[in-house]
Amino acid sequence: MGPKSVVRDYYHRIRQNTLDIVAPLTAEDMNLQMMPKVSPPKWHLAHTTWFFEKLILSGAQEGYEVFCEPYHDLFNSYYQSLGRPFARDQRGALSRPFLKDVLRYRQYVDEAMAELMAADPKEEVWEAMALGLAHEEQHQELLYMDLLYNFSRNPLHPVYQEDYPELADEEKGSFMDIKPDVYSIGTDDKDAYDCEGPRHRVFLEPVALSSSLVSNGDYLEFMQSKGYERSEFWLAKGFDWVQRDEIKAPLYWRFIDGDWYEYHLGGLKPLQMSQPVRHVSFFEADAYARFAGARLPKEAEWEVFARLYSKFCPLDRLWQWTLSSYEPYPGFKKRPGAFSEYNGKFMCDQYVLRGGAKETPKGHTRLSYRNYFEAQDRWPFTGIRLARDLV
Amino acid sequence: MGPKSVVRDYYHRIRQNTLDIVAPLTAEDMNLQMMPKVSPPKWHLAHTTWFFEKLILSGAQEGYEVFCEPYHDLFNSYYQSLGRPFARDQRGALSRPFLKDVLRYRQYVDEAMAELMAADPKEEVWEAMALGLAHEEQHQELLYMDLLYNFSRNPLHPVYQEDYPELADEEKGSFMDIKPDVYSIGTDDKDAYDCEGPRHRVFLEPVALSSSLVSNGDYLEFMQSKGYERSEFWLAKGFDWVQRDEIKAPLYWRFIDGDWYEYHLGGLKPLQMSQPVRHVSFFEADAYARFAGARLPKEAEWEVFARLYSKFCPLDRLWQWTLSSYEPYPGFKKRPGAFSEYNGKFMCDQYVLRGGAKETPKGHTRLSYRNYFEAQDRWPFTGIRLARDLV
Amino acid sequence: MGPKSVVRDYYHRIRQNTLDIVAPLTAEDMNLQMMPKVSPPKWHLAHTTWFFEKLILSGAQEGYEVFCEPYHDLFNSYYQSLGRPFARDQRGALSRPFLKDVLRYRQYVDEAMAELMAADPKEEVWEAMALGLAHEEQHQELLYMDLLYNFSRNPLHPVYQEDYPELADEEKGSFMDIKPDVYSIGTDDKDAYDCEGPRHRVFLEPVALSSSLVSNGDYLEFMQSKGYERSEFWLAKGFDWVQRDEIKAPLYWRFIDGDWYEYHLGGLKPLQMSQPVRHVSFFEADAYARFAGARLPKEAEWEVFARLYSKFCPLDRLWQWTLSSYEPYPGFKKRPGAFSEYNGKFMCDQYVLRGGAKETPKGHTRLSYRNYFEAQDRWPFTGIRLARDLV
Amino acid sequence: MGPKSVVRDYYHRIRQNTLDIVAPLTAEDMNLQMMPKVSPPKWHLAHTTWFFEKLILSGAQEGYEVFCEPYHDLFNSYYQSLGRPFARDQRGALSRPFLKDVLRYRQYVDEAMAELMAADPKEEVWEAMALGLAHEEQHQELLYMDLLYNFSRNPLHPVYQEDYPELADEEKGSFMDIKPDVYSIGTDDKDAYDCEGPRHRVFLEPVALSSSLVSNGDYLEFMQSKGYERSEFWLAKGFDWVQRDEIKAPLYWRFIDGDWYEYHLGGLKPLQMSQPVRHVSFFEADAYARFAGARLPKEAEWEVFARLYSKFCPLDRLWQWTLSSYEPYPGFKKRPGAFSEYNGKFMCDQYVLRGGAKETPKGHTRLSYRNYFEAQDRWPFTGIRLARDLV
Repeated sequence: MGPKSVVRDYYHRIRQNTLDIVAPLTAEDMNLQMMPKVSPPKWHLAHTTWFFEKLILSGAQEGYEVFCEPYHDLFNSYYQSLGRPFARDQRGALSRPFLKDVLRYRQYVDEAMAELMAADPKEEVWEAMALGLAHEEQHQELLYMDLLYNFSRNPLHPVYQEDYPELADEEKGSFMDIKPDVYSIGTDDKDAYDCEGPRHRVFLEPVALSSSLVSNGDYLEFMQSKGYERSEFWLAKGFDWVQRDEIKAPLYWRFIDGDWYEYHLGGLKPLQMSQPVRHVSFFEADAYARFAGARLPKEAEWEVFARLYSKFCPLDRLWQWTLSSYEPYPGFKKRPGAFSEYNGKFMCDQYVLRGGAKETPKGHTRLSYRNYFEAQDRWPFTGIRLARDLV
Repeated sequence: MGPKSVVRDYYHRIRQNTLDIVAPLTAEDMNLQMMPKVSPPKWHLAHTTWFFEKLILSGAQEGYEVFCEPYHDLFNSYYQSLGRPFARDQRGALSRPFLKDVLRYRQYVDEAMAELMAADPKEEVWEAMALGLAHEEQHQELLYMDLLYNFSRNPLHPVYQEDYPELADEEKGSFMDIKPDVYSIGTDDKDAYDCEGPRHRVFLEPVALSSSLVSNGDYLEFMQSKGYERSEFWLAKGFDWVQRDEIKAPLYWRFIDGDWYEYHLGGLKPLQMSQPVRHVSFFEADAYARFAGARLPKEAEWEVFARLYSKFCPLDRLWQWTLSSYEPYPGFKKRPGAFSEYNGKFMCDQYVLRGGAKETPKGHTRLSYRNYFEAQDRWPFTGIRLARDLV
Repeated sequence: MGPKSVVRDYYHRIRQNTLDIVAPLTAEDMNLQMMPKVSPPKWHLAHTTWFFEKLILSGAQEGYEVFCEPYHDLFNSYYQSLGRPFARDQRGALSRPFLKDVLRYRQYVDEAMAELMAADPKEEVWEAMALGLAHEEQHQELLYMDLLYNFSRNPLHPVYQEDYPELADEEKGSFMDIKPDVYSIGTDDKDAYDCEGPRHRVFLEPVALSSSLVSNGDYLEFMQSKGYERSEFWLAKGFDWVQRDEIKAPLYWRFIDGDWYEYHLGGLKPLQMSQPVRHVSFFEADAYARFAGARLPKEAEWEVFARLYSKFCPLDRLWQWTLSSYEPYPGFKKRPGAFSEYNGKFMCDQYVLRGGAKETPKGHTRLSYRNYFEAQDRWPFTGIRLARDLV
Repeated sequence: MGPKSVVRDYYHRIRQNTLDIVAPLTAEDMNLQMMPKVSPPKWHLAHTTWFFEKLILSGAQEGYEVFCEPYHDLFNSYYQSLGRPFARDQRGALSRPFLKDVLRYRQYVDEAMAELMAADPKEEVWEAMALGLAHEEQHQELLYMDLLYNFSRNPLHPVYQEDYPELADEEKGSFMDIKPDVYSIGTDDKDAYDCEGPRHRVFLEPVALSSSLVSNGDYLEFMQSKGYERSEFWLAKGFDWVQRDEIKAPLYWRFIDGDWYEYHLGGLKPLQMSQPVRHVSFFEADAYARFAGARLPKEAEWEVFARLYSKFCPLDRLWQWTLSSYEPYPGFKKRPGAFSEYNGKFMCDQYVLRGGAKETPKGHTRLSYRNYFEAQDRWPFTGIRLARDLV
């Protein structure tokens, strides 16, 4: 997204998209927080608004009056430099402000933003707005993820949307080669997140990546081979996790009266064997790969592969676990000011995922995009792509 | 409450009282569960209804059709003999059924109950109904307790009711004697809970109990004498609790800019020195007593005192911690069937409280009533009455 | 034990007994601490010595020089008024001082004590000495308990003493009545612990206690009736414990190749059906009683029973769980000074056990003796005596 | 280390070195385990012996009789394919076998190994022996690490060796450049661990590494600038760790009466400002680097730097945290059989350290060596080398 014209055009559309996502929900659904890592939908609505108010309006618009003083801490996610963020695991306490108050907050800020854009502020303000919109798009996907998780804790299998679109079946692919060479990855595009740059060179040894994702049917084979009980497939920490948490299947699979079902935003449905397997942890992806005589790709391999064979890497199916920890690229520089807390401080004990999910807003993803989660996280829209060394 | 006529008269009134309590709340407020021990208001509405459906209608009314099958586990609190109760700490997951569905559930069951009462069922059904209403009254107080706790986690200090009535000031009293003798306590009244009986004899050594409760002013003196830091006042387990949880004041006291405030259902107000201190744990009550050169009363002492000096023991102010663990009386027999799980199985590591709170429904309390909580619990409406040995 | 003459005579003998208990152990065995509640044998040796040094010699003997300054905190168990006790769960860190140093410490203090006794100090010093010896006797039993627990974590089933004496078989008894009446329990004997007094009156409703303890064979029947899986026998907190900790048998029972064995200080032996069951928690004792159509006795019932039928209450078999929480008797007064921390501060969430174990030093127990542990504790020498209401 | 001749020569020497390390310890010291991650010295003695018995003798020497059957699980560290390893956090339970038994075990296995070597077994056996010796050398360093940690929990500051050699002072260095290019790192040497290979190509962007390590004086400056309180220097997870565990200085620093001391194997000594700072976590190293306007080096950068400027990278001072997570190199293959569990399964949420410590056996380290620990680990001999991007 380029600043100025694009931002102006997109602002209304992206803000509206967020409201469209929560449209099927009641105020009761909007306050759920069933684990510390997820946030209530209402909080997402408020926080994305806070981002514009606190990081843009308060600085850039003269005489701007904040909507409600206490929101500054309540809807601060983790910006230590901006105050004392309200405890993450307590967000579900906020029955108040009510949904209607949060919607008024959105409207208030949107009006102020419209004024600000009309006044054609400095270049850096446009850049911050672009970031604010990218940030809101990230939260749109989080809304889906968190909602699905929250709903999954309800034995009634709530349906978010009856005709929620299914993931298309995955056609069985083949392994495609990458030749050993120096490649460039990452981007210097100012619209990308800081962690995606700088663009830099890497050397790749010969490797092949699969043109397709692992399917539910493939994964079921792993399970039927007692994959969850055989330590030889697992990282030690993964095997501990499997045993301690009694993990036996992907997060939203349900075994009922002898059949496998999958719970998702469309409700509980019979498991579709040709769809790509989803909502697996890094540990499960990694163990499956070992079972299949393969390994997960490194993120540089993934990016080079995706540039070489872009048609096999649609960015609207599932995020794909890579074997790479989330580390700064050589020459990495954080954005200045409060934005410096956006990405860099999370570079520890997280794995990079590449690609994009059906739930990721169109235009938000790109080949250099680095998503990241912890090794046991399963509530993101994760899937598995395999790689094989050619040496 | 005597069965039959009384039950019939009270049924509607008590059920309506519950709705009156939640009237100031929105559906958003109604799903809060900010610690495992508290339940969302909506869950209370459903559970008290479930009690009539599951323990009375399903057995007593021929052809009764349950409102919704899955509710049987969802709104079962802890009755192992009736199925698999939904996890207590997950009750906040139930954004669905929506509040409106739960209200329909209440209406459906109320209509069936009206039919049942019209058919004049067997004596034991009337008795079960009386228990069901007592059960609902208990949950009315829990509604207040839980709501207050949930709201207290919100930094905005939500107000339940602007003109929520204050606790009247406590007049400073004096210690009144009980002579050594054999006394009878407890009751064989069928309308009382099983744990209140059988009536039996106890011997009391000479003791005196205070005619008044400890006030906020008294308690502040304890705090200003560094009471929370002086181990000599505390039970070992209490001192560990104080240090680990960094306890420094009663649960809802707030120190803001040099002044003490108390948060309650009427909102945040300056602390009133003459009101009785409330929302203290057994540990704090016990430590305060030691600081004051006194001790807490045993429950038998409390009951005998209350019978001798009933005007000093109003049952509509605060529950009062006793020094007595919640144990079965000699000859204690549980009610039969599922009702056997009502009280007896909780007789472990709990302290008895006697009296009654402003929030306790009128007519629900009595001098033999045994309330009980764990030593560190502070969210009930607790207060402190002192005793002194006369030997 | 009366002061002066008796103390003088007993001092050497009791101190020597402690050394006799640890004689079969190596220095390696002497530093084990396999859960926070148990202490290493070496620590017991030092702590009992510290008691004499810190609570008697430092005050009573002019010019006494402490053996080693840092011991004052290292071997302080929990006396907040005497300094900063070294963390209880870190006692196993003390490979140093070495065993030989601790033995020198014992000798040094014993010599100073001999001098002090020779100087015939004030009465209160003699009383403190009597308490110090009682304290040492308590630790003698703890030595056995803790050692057994520590050894039990070693898969090699270490043998403390090959010919460690077996518990004699229990002859099947019958229930013996107590008539309803006012009885006196407790003692004002100065040699008893403070918590045993004052002697006071209680009223007992009619009840009967069994003249024998529950046997392994009886208990096995409970297990074979799926006792551990049937919630109706259990306190709610007990059933949670059973499920969470996967409790399936008494602490030291082992099921090997289809047979039951019991591990004890004599090593791993086939389970003897006629011996009294031991190392059960309060929860298990209480559940067994309910299975058997009985209940546990209250501590006052136990004491009255033991005075009436003393031959059925030998004090050298097992401690017996009572239904009574450990609470202060009416008129209870702590000893003054540091001794005040000895008993009173532990009166919370503990159950009283009455009787005495084979491992309890002769002459240490008495009918008024109140032992206490938490409801899930199983490493003391616990057993089960049943009671039945006669109403 | 090359197989055969070298192995034969080294076997006795390396086994003896282990005994030399524990020579200053008593049997009491040898059983300490003060956190689950450390093992008692006696366990190390047994486990390294078990490695030869279980992974070599049992397979390679006909008719070999195991020393003691139960040792096979007791001293198995984590090899799931070889049985059921005894619980890691329970190793301190093993007062038995006694130290003398473990020493006999070592002798028994050494004699069998001598026989085996004399019989000149197959090449793969020699390779396994080389691995067994490398394994023992690793445990020699672990012995020092674990011992230091265990002793550090004792307030008496035990001294392992009065004249334990100090770390030489660090001369202030400068940053030395690496030019952008394709470099090779890793090794195909069969004597190296599997995770060090295969040798492969990487591209490095321009970077400079410091020729010296960060000193205590440097680090103190960070502390005096309130480094532990300023979130801007820290990874989010690191700042949580600092706050939750109240971290205020490196692991073995002690602030006593206004002065800084460092506890180490030579006892408690005044902190030496020119010595390199040690026993810091990855979090602390990373935060210090940010404070210093630098970053930690990636492991490939470290290895290339060390090959270019070897004199600045002595392998006998401290391990140095890198910014690289412990991941498999492209083409990584585990060793076959039980050896496959040696390294690969730990490649998750660990950071690579490069270099070597004074306590690392001479000849055990090499430039390709990949040591690894978790981000909060401080008990290894860690230090800090800085890097700077040249872009």
